[in-house]
Amino acid sequence: MMFASDNWAGACPQVQQALADLGPEIAPAYGGDALSAAVNARLSDIFEAPVESLMVATGSAANALALAHFAKPGGITLAHTNAHVMVDEYNGPERLSPGLKILGLPGPGGKLTADGLANVLSRFPEGVSRQGRLTCLSLTQATELGQIYTQQEVAHLSSLAKQIGLGVHMDGARFANAIAHLACSPADLTWRAGVDCLSLGFTKNGAWAADLLIFFNGESSVEAGYIRKQMGQNFSKPRFMAAQILAMLDNDIWLNNARHANEKATNLATGLAASGKSSVPFMPQANEVFAYFDAADIERLQKAGASFYPWPDEDIPDDLREDDKTLMRLVCSFATSSQEVENLLNELD
Amino acid sequence: MMFASDNWAGACPQVQQALADLGPEIAPAYGGDALSAAVNARLSDIFEAPVESLMVATGSAANALALAHFAKPGGITLAHTNAHVMVDEYNGPERLSPGLKILGLPGPGGKLTADGLANVLSRFPEGVSRQGRLTCLSLTQATELGQIYTQQEVAHLSSLAKQIGLGVHMDGARFANAIAHLACSPADLTWRAGVDCLSLGFTKNGAWAADLLIFFNGESSVEAGYIRKQMGQNFSKPRFMAAQILAMLDNDIWLNNARHANEKATNLATGLAASGKSSVPFMPQANEVFAYFDAADIERLQKAGASFYPWPDEDIPDDLREDDKTLMRLVCSFATSSQEVENLLNELD
Amino acid sequence: MMFASDNWAGACPQVQQALADLGPEIAPAYGGDALSAAVNARLSDIFEAPVESLMVATGSAANALALAHFAKPGGITLAHTNAHVMVDEYNGPERLSPGLKILGLPGPGGKLTADGLANVLSRFPEGVSRQGRLTCLSLTQATELGQIYTQQEVAHLSSLAKQIGLGVHMDGARFANAIAHLACSPADLTWRAGVDCLSLGFTKNGAWAADLLIFFNGESSVEAGYIRKQMGQNFSKPRFMAAQILAMLDNDIWLNNARHANEKATNLATGLAASGKSSVPFMPQANEVFAYFDAADIERLQKAGASFYPWPDEDIPDDLREDDKTLMRLVCSFATSSQEVENLLNELD
Amino acid sequence: MMFASDNWAGACPQVQQALADLGPEIAPAYGGDALSAAVNARLSDIFEAPVESLMVATGSAANALALAHFAKPGGITLAHTNAHVMVDEYNGPERLSPGLKILGLPGPGGKLTADGLANVLSRFPEGVSRQGRLTCLSLTQATELGQIYTQQEVAHLSSLAKQIGLGVHMDGARFANAIAHLACSPADLTWRAGVDCLSLGFTKNGAWAADLLIFFNGESSVEAGYIRKQMGQNFSKPRFMAAQILAMLDNDIWLNNARHANEKATNLATGLAASGKSSVPFMPQANEVFAYFDAADIERLQKAGASFYPWPDEDIPDDLREDDKTLMRLVCSFATSSQEVENLLNELD
Repeated sequence: MMFASDNWAGACPQVQQALADLGPEIAPAYGGDALSAAVNARLSDIFEAPVESLMVATGSAANALALAHFAKPGGITLAHTNAHVMVDEYNGPERLSPGLKILGLPGPGGKLTADGLANVLSRFPEGVSRQGRLTCLSLTQATELGQIYTQQEVAHLSSLAKQIGLGVHMDGARFANAIAHLACSPADLTWRAGVDCLSLGFTKNGAWAADLLIFFNGESSVEAGYIRKQMGQNFSKPRFMAAQILAMLDNDIWLNNARHANEKATNLATGLAASGKSSVPFMPQANEVFAYFDAADIERLQKAGASFYPWPDEDIPDDLREDDKTLMRLVCSFATSSQEVENLLNELD
Repeated sequence: MMFASDNWAGACPQVQQALADLGPEIAPAYGGDALSAAVNARLSDIFEAPVESLMVATGSAANALALAHFAKPGGITLAHTNAHVMVDEYNGPERLSPGLKILGLPGPGGKLTADGLANVLSRFPEGVSRQGRLTCLSLTQATELGQIYTQQEVAHLSSLAKQIGLGVHMDGARFANAIAHLACSPADLTWRAGVDCLSLGFTKNGAWAADLLIFFNGESSVEAGYIRKQMGQNFSKPRFMAAQILAMLDNDIWLNNARHANEKATNLATGLAASGKSSVPFMPQANEVFAYFDAADIERLQKAGASFYPWPDEDIPDDLREDDKTLMRLVCSFATSSQEVENLLNELD
Repeated sequence: MMFASDNWAGACPQVQQALADLGPEIAPAYGGDALSAAVNARLSDIFEAPVESLMVATGSAANALALAHFAKPGGITLAHTNAHVMVDEYNGPERLSPGLKILGLPGPGGKLTADGLANVLSRFPEGVSRQGRLTCLSLTQATELGQIYTQQEVAHLSSLAKQIGLGVHMDGARFANAIAHLACSPADLTWRAGVDCLSLGFTKNGAWAADLLIFFNGESSVEAGYIRKQMGQNFSKPRFMAAQILAMLDNDIWLNNARHANEKATNLATGLAASGKSSVPFMPQANEVFAYFDAADIERLQKAGASFYPWPDEDIPDDLREDDKTLMRLVCSFATSSQEVENLLNELD
Repeated sequence: MMFASDNWAGACPQVQQALADLGPEIAPAYGGDALSAAVNARLSDIFEAPVESLMVATGSAANALALAHFAKPGGITLAHTNAHVMVDEYNGPERLSPGLKILGLPGPGGKLTADGLANVLSRFPEGVSRQGRLTCLSLTQATELGQIYTQQEVAHLSSLAKQIGLGVHMDGARFANAIAHLACSPADLTWRAGVDCLSLGFTKNGAWAADLLIFFNGESSVEAGYIRKQMGQNFSKPRFMAAQILAMLDNDIWLNNARHANEKATNLATGLAASGKSSVPFMPQANEVFAYFDAADIERLQKAGASFYPWPDEDIPDDLREDDKTLMRLVCSFATSSQEVENLLNELD
């Protein structure tokens, strides 16, 4: 009953196989090899347009690099108050881009609202005010509360941001879960909806370590490549990472893994809501369930071997908040089994 | 005949096996797993003292983190004029630690001399001058020209630096090659000789991606851990890296790999020197051969399929420099075969 | 009718005289002169304890230096959502200290509340959380809305912050106005109330350019001095600044100037409130009046030559906010005359 | 007999008068006043082309801002090994622009040579190499050893740099001394010779604190203005600085002051060379004399009240170096009298 996080899982069989297939053969370093070279082509195929990408060590690195790409003196990035770039990266983006400020906007379920965004934008006529200048809008897809922006929502928020020249970044550590949920094309959810660059994560979804930053719309990755090297993330043998990525893109493994995780989360949330022991403020759209529990039930489940943790509930709307209970996060992954879900629900019975 | 760089090799069989053995099982993220936890213990065993370490994406990252560990406002790091931190990292250390300056000291074969160091130190009474304050001495072992500091040399340079309070860092991207050459204990070449922290590289020596920064002398890695997270290098599943490291530390694979590479380099250099076609200013002590060639011979070898590149020769002493020839670098790795060496020498015949 | 800002005034007569008295005589540079040397002694006298101080170019510089003094990797400074360090310095503190985040806390009148602070602190057990670690509390005295923390309030907020090891900074661009209002001793409002360092501004209060950062409690200014030099603010002839400061500290000019400005602000606010044309949500405690006006009245006053500007009213409590009017800021200075106040009030009649 | 530094002098009478004339009148802050507005116009007149400028706290600030203006990820600035930006600013440029490296080039008398520059440039084909990319050439005029680049020399060095796209900065802390020496137009020595921006210093030349960065060739100062604000150097009452600058530009005071200082330096150097007690490796071209003295003579002069300090002699060519003597720097200023020069020479007799 492991629901602590999707990054507690190991690697999926296809990734394991791809690494096992990597022989000892010699190849040019720093991306000169055939596997690394294949990544951009494969992604361009999937995103239906020529893209450039940079492989990096973690999703945090991809995010910091994206924000650095848009940074200017006095620059401000807009993101949700509880976005990963805001609260989970120890100010890594601010360290990489000195003088960067990330301005947090609230929103239920971790989602920015068009009204909220428009309101902030109005304080920066043509992008600039006495407070600085806006340079970038960063959207998290899926959000930290497991919710998903539709193509229309992304397009609307992007168009607001672009009216005053902001770049649009999408933190897609769980992008595959969003695609699996919306059953739309990756292109529709990104560049066709105004996204300029995407942190695309494979690690939570079945790789050991494989994250990258993708540039759309003809944005070149050359300048960001300089910064990546400065970050100490220019891997000399990136084949080991390219192999993981290609293995997951082949045969839609990345989407199958995400679909599996989403499905387990939906099953779990449905069961919890039906149990009468727990309330679920938002039905999961991706692979994370957020549910309120009594202290006694939490203790019972943990004693029975379930791993899961509390989560701040400030982005739960007032009418859905339960002040005498604790909001817990339960995360499913490609490795979560129906049995685990069933066991947890049974335990609660 | 692949002599372009040691990082063109893939992973050694033991690393491949270790990754294949990594099952899909669940484990706590961010180093809470058993393999990651075993790394410090295993290193403490090998270094004969309790050490702390941090796994990072690349050797450049380990170096930047080390220099950040010692950084202070107005701080200056001393390193060889052509050290990796100085000329190969796109100012990554200076980006991570704003206001850092690396002051280059010349020295034949890429080695700092005690006289050269003492001379610079004398300009910073008690570490400070109008130019700033010295915070760190960074030694590269083996050097960029394939030379190795003996324990006595390290100890002497360290003691000079420590007289005015500098931290001592060793860039050990090829540390295993140094240990293999000197046949001394890792402890003797590091903390017993005054080294405070060591960038220890496994990637050039047979891993896909495995580098770490080791802290000796009771230096805590806690503060550096904050910085690593800011760098976007806090891997969520570091097991994949720990597995590579542990596989190479087991049964002295790291030393065997290095010994093999050193031996091939020595054979190659000996053959080149005997060929009459090439001159070798320094006999290799690690796995890199630097040799002067005529343009015609370079072309002949490259046409025959040998890969190797020119290298700046400013650290070759005047009396060993050959102005009408080109200095080339030929690097051997754990994967270099005797046949390759022989083929290249035959081609030159 | 100049109420645009206190920094539209020139220098007060005493500062003018002090500069006129500065002869062409020779003196050691970089603070080796007698006037510069006298500043610390004079401040120690006024603050009833040995202090160290550093003169800097602006109040923003003093603030950035203070936050840098407390900065650590992953560090977070707490400040009011609309504090000067948060919204008026183009992310200067974040540029000087890369990786710094300033976390905004709301509060009516620009004042942090003890409850609000305690609530945030509780999310950082022992100062650290997954979000980073708290390093500093920055209080603005007087606040951006012209309100003043009492000694008791400062002491309470400081004690909360210090329980988990935070440094306490006070942004005292209008500190003299606070002392004038409270009629307390500078010591009581600073180090006796837990303040570790104070940005003390003379520029808004009658100097041309004279700001400094004062360190209490035995905090040394040596490290901050390195940073100041890196900021390009180590004036070679600081006598010109020391002369301004000493002239204002002599004969309580700094307090007299502030008292004058406060009094004009009180008169203005009282008149506005009595006029029936304007409402004043908070009576001024320092030298700034915030008042709601109809658009027509604003236009009338500006046509008549009054200079003053709108101000965001998000820190005005709901029950005091007037949604059909505009909040305007009117600032008095040492140079504001009773006649100007009277003229503006007459114009409104 | 004050020859310690030109920044030991106070302000010249015209600056004193200008400050005395600054009344208490009200004016818009942050450069909205008439005096500040007049600076660009006056400079455009003097430089015979429209220029933009930014006033800053010190010459170091102007330099750091210039280097930041040209900075890019992985960027390298070229400057003389002992330039002020290299050895006198506590790595301020590197702090303001994290990831900046300043690569030092040697050259006699503190001057870069065309051969030396060409040699370095050749290592960066099209500006880029594995070491990073060149972004800026910074020339010091007059140099740290009191020598002056002619218009032809500046033009030649600039043209080399511009062939691969570098920006050209001139550190003109003693620019007036250079103009006074060459008797050329400010335009000829700057933008007509390829200089893109100039740190123009008034402080050493008779102001209390007045330095600025001038942009030629249509370079806008807008972006640099953002950075200046982040540096905490956006003075609220810049009139006090503009007044000093305008006073010195009026009636060629800046050139007269410099001419006076140069003349005293020439007289001093001539006397020293004639004395038989001291040798002068380079005749001064600006206001600094560098001369070798015996220890006994140094002691005698200092006992007699002369203030002057030793200076490193590594940029003195071998054949002019005197290993048994000490190189001393003696600086003249606008305030140096003929009597002081005579007294020192007499003392040596």
